[in-house]
Amino acid sequence: MNPLYATMPTTIFERMSARAREMGAINLGQGFPDSNGPADVVDAAARALVERSNQYPPMAGLPELREAVAAHYRRHQQLDLQPEEVIVTSGATEAIAAAILALVSPGDEVVMFQPLYDAYLPLVLRAGGVPRLVRLAPPDWRITAEALDAAFGERTRVAILNTPLNPAGAMTGPDALALLAERVIACDAVLVSDEVWEHVVFDGRRHVSPMALPGMRERTVKIGSAGKIFSLTGWKVGWMCAAPALAGPLSRAHQFLTFTTPPNLQAAAAYGLGKDDAYFEEMRANLARSRDRLATQLGEAGWSVPRSEATYFLSLDLAASGIALDDATFCDRLVAEFGVAAIPVSAFYADDPVTGVVRLCFAKRDETLDAAAERMARAL
Amino acid sequence: MNPLYATMPTTIFERMSARAREMGAINLGQGFPDSNGPADVVDAAARALVERSNQYPPMAGLPELREAVAAHYRRHQQLDLQPEEVIVTSGATEAIAAAILALVSPGDEVVMFQPLYDAYLPLVLRAGGVPRLVRLAPPDWRITAEALDAAFGERTRVAILNTPLNPAGAMTGPDALALLAERVIACDAVLVSDEVWEHVVFDGRRHVSPMALPGMRERTVKIGSAGKIFSLTGWKVGWMCAAPALAGPLSRAHQFLTFTTPPNLQAAAAYGLGKDDAYFEEMRANLARSRDRLATQLGEAGWSVPRSEATYFLSLDLAASGIALDDATFCDRLVAEFGVAAIPVSAFYADDPVTGVVRLCFAKRDETLDAAAERMARAL
Ligand SMILES: CSCCC(=O)C(=O)O
Ligand SMILES: CSCCC(=O)C(=O)O
Repeated sequence: MNPLYATMPTTIFERMSARAREMGAINLGQGFPDSNGPADVVDAAARALVERSNQYPPMAGLPELREAVAAHYRRHQQLDLQPEEVIVTSGATEAIAAAILALVSPGDEVVMFQPLYDAYLPLVLRAGGVPRLVRLAPPDWRITAEALDAAFGERTRVAILNTPLNPAGAMTGPDALALLAERVIACDAVLVSDEVWEHVVFDGRRHVSPMALPGMRERTVKIGSAGKIFSLTGWKVGWMCAAPALAGPLSRAHQFLTFTTPPNLQAAAAYGLGKDDAYFEEMRANLARSRDRLATQLGEAGWSVPRSEATYFLSLDLAASGIALDDATFCDRLVAEFGVAAIPVSAFYADDPVTGVVRLCFAKRDETLDAAAERMARAL
Repeated sequence: MNPLYATMPTTIFERMSARAREMGAINLGQGFPDSNGPADVVDAAARALVERSNQYPPMAGLPELREAVAAHYRRHQQLDLQPEEVIVTSGATEAIAAAILALVSPGDEVVMFQPLYDAYLPLVLRAGGVPRLVRLAPPDWRITAEALDAAFGERTRVAILNTPLNPAGAMTGPDALALLAERVIACDAVLVSDEVWEHVVFDGRRHVSPMALPGMRERTVKIGSAGKIFSLTGWKVGWMCAAPALAGPLSRAHQFLTFTTPPNLQAAAAYGLGKDDAYFEEMRANLARSRDRLATQLGEAGWSVPRSEATYFLSLDLAASGIALDDATFCDRLVAEFGVAAIPVSAFYADDPVTGVVRLCFAKRDETLDAAAERMARAL
């Protein structure tokens, strides 16, 4: 038994969803919508099941999806991507796993940022990497030059960034991106850029991929997720994009993790990615309305709710809301006594956790948000 | 860049399928049927897409599929499995990856058998394991006590068996299973038992899982595949079954590889596993007829075709067929000059390869088999 897995807990998202199911609570924990995704995309998948081959598609993905991903990023992010640079994976989690296994050798230092998405650290450790953690904290979750200088060094081979940042709901600004890119380039490292929230950005903001920065085109692995873009989180269709010298080894790691991804879901994702700009604008506008609906009600009840710039998530500042408990204790009580599941942000830290912030998922129907807000008002 | 992935080739199955597409050849290489799977199972998946949640199912799988897998093995293999002992994965490849990452630590010795399924060795190396290879060879691919004694030792932590054995089309007999179990137990090791071909056994044979052997219940990870059982290889729905002490760490490795598997495909697999015995008998009978149809025509043309007991595959004995080429050279010529893609069995060896055997997939429609047989006759 590898000791890493012997002692590791089940991920916080799964544990909180399990508790929500047990308690019959409203689940604002794990990040998924309670609607069922766009009907036309779902129908495209159902049609493909019946009309197309259900046998192995090519290992790196259906040509039409690889082309659709490349075209999508050319159009939406001005990235000059080719289909050969896109590898379809069984969700972004598989892309993260493949990238880390392909890029990290024992002893390599890997720079990561806390709050950390749950998969990063265990995968880096399993790959034999040596984590170098940069701590970010509210209110602005800012990446500073000093913190980067303390983390990057001679043995840095990989850095992993999540932008927009889950659970903070914050985007990495241009200055921070430039600081990071500078050090990645200076160390001749590779940046694994987890951009699953790239489409879920609000108030007219625009996502910028680190891959677009000077010098980063050849050293960025850009990871995306159809599940997040189309609110179909169970589909597990993701991808990683990288220049050919990286894409080769990445595809070889992928071939021995899942080999390939269901062709009907790939075909439907390709169809979805071809939608016009208005579609993505409306998706964002709807999610922004949900964010505001929940934030307004929570604010009226007396909760301190810092502004969320992106992702499905907003956060509560416990101390500013007059709550003296730490986030984990508060979340335990919230689900048990008030019937709302949430995620304690301390779960995203390996050490020196931020303990006063709780994450809520607002990608829910109005009635779900209203019912949750009512319970949250009583919890204050 | 991890050097393992820098130098590794793309898997032989993908390369041969790509060549078949390029050349417009008949593809008897990669193991997949050219039909589209049982219509009612496909319809169940299409219905679930529209009628059920497309959001994250539980990490270890839909309860109904975990129950269906356990019930299926209780009924078909007299294994006393509980749903909690089943972890659904995105194909058997993911189960193999999760098992190896969870069980192997750097320096652990891992016993494997050549011919090796392509994923095993790279994953063991990536996990830091030290491979101890047992070489099997035609005509009987037999596992001997002497070979096992040379491979097992003090540092053995894991053994990996594929039974029925791809590409040999051979089943591991009861004597060999007992010899293997004895050593796994003596070394206090765990057996990763890749049984994706368990349902594809012919001529009244019955598959026996190593998990059923005395002393092996608690130390076997039994891996299965809905894609192989239902001829829906693109669906990538698999599972691993293990006693709770193993299932915990396995599920934690799984949670950071893909986290979960599309719920509609899981629901359809659960439906399919509930089919009655007659269904599985007929599936086997149909595949046996396809095997015989191809083998008979090849035999009549002068090919030496050893009998296949199981799997989608039969093999050709090149030397006995009067062909002096090695298998890789022959397969290159076969696809280029005669328009049939096949797999050289030497690709399943890391060293000291068997070079005189070629694998053909017979899980194809009659017209495909007949056309391929005609071309193969010309190739002799
Ligand atoms: C894989 S479950 C977690 C989903 C998610 O992105 C989140 O809740 O943060
Ligand atoms: C994952 S592609 C290989 C499929 C298969 O089992 C085979 O062809 O041996």
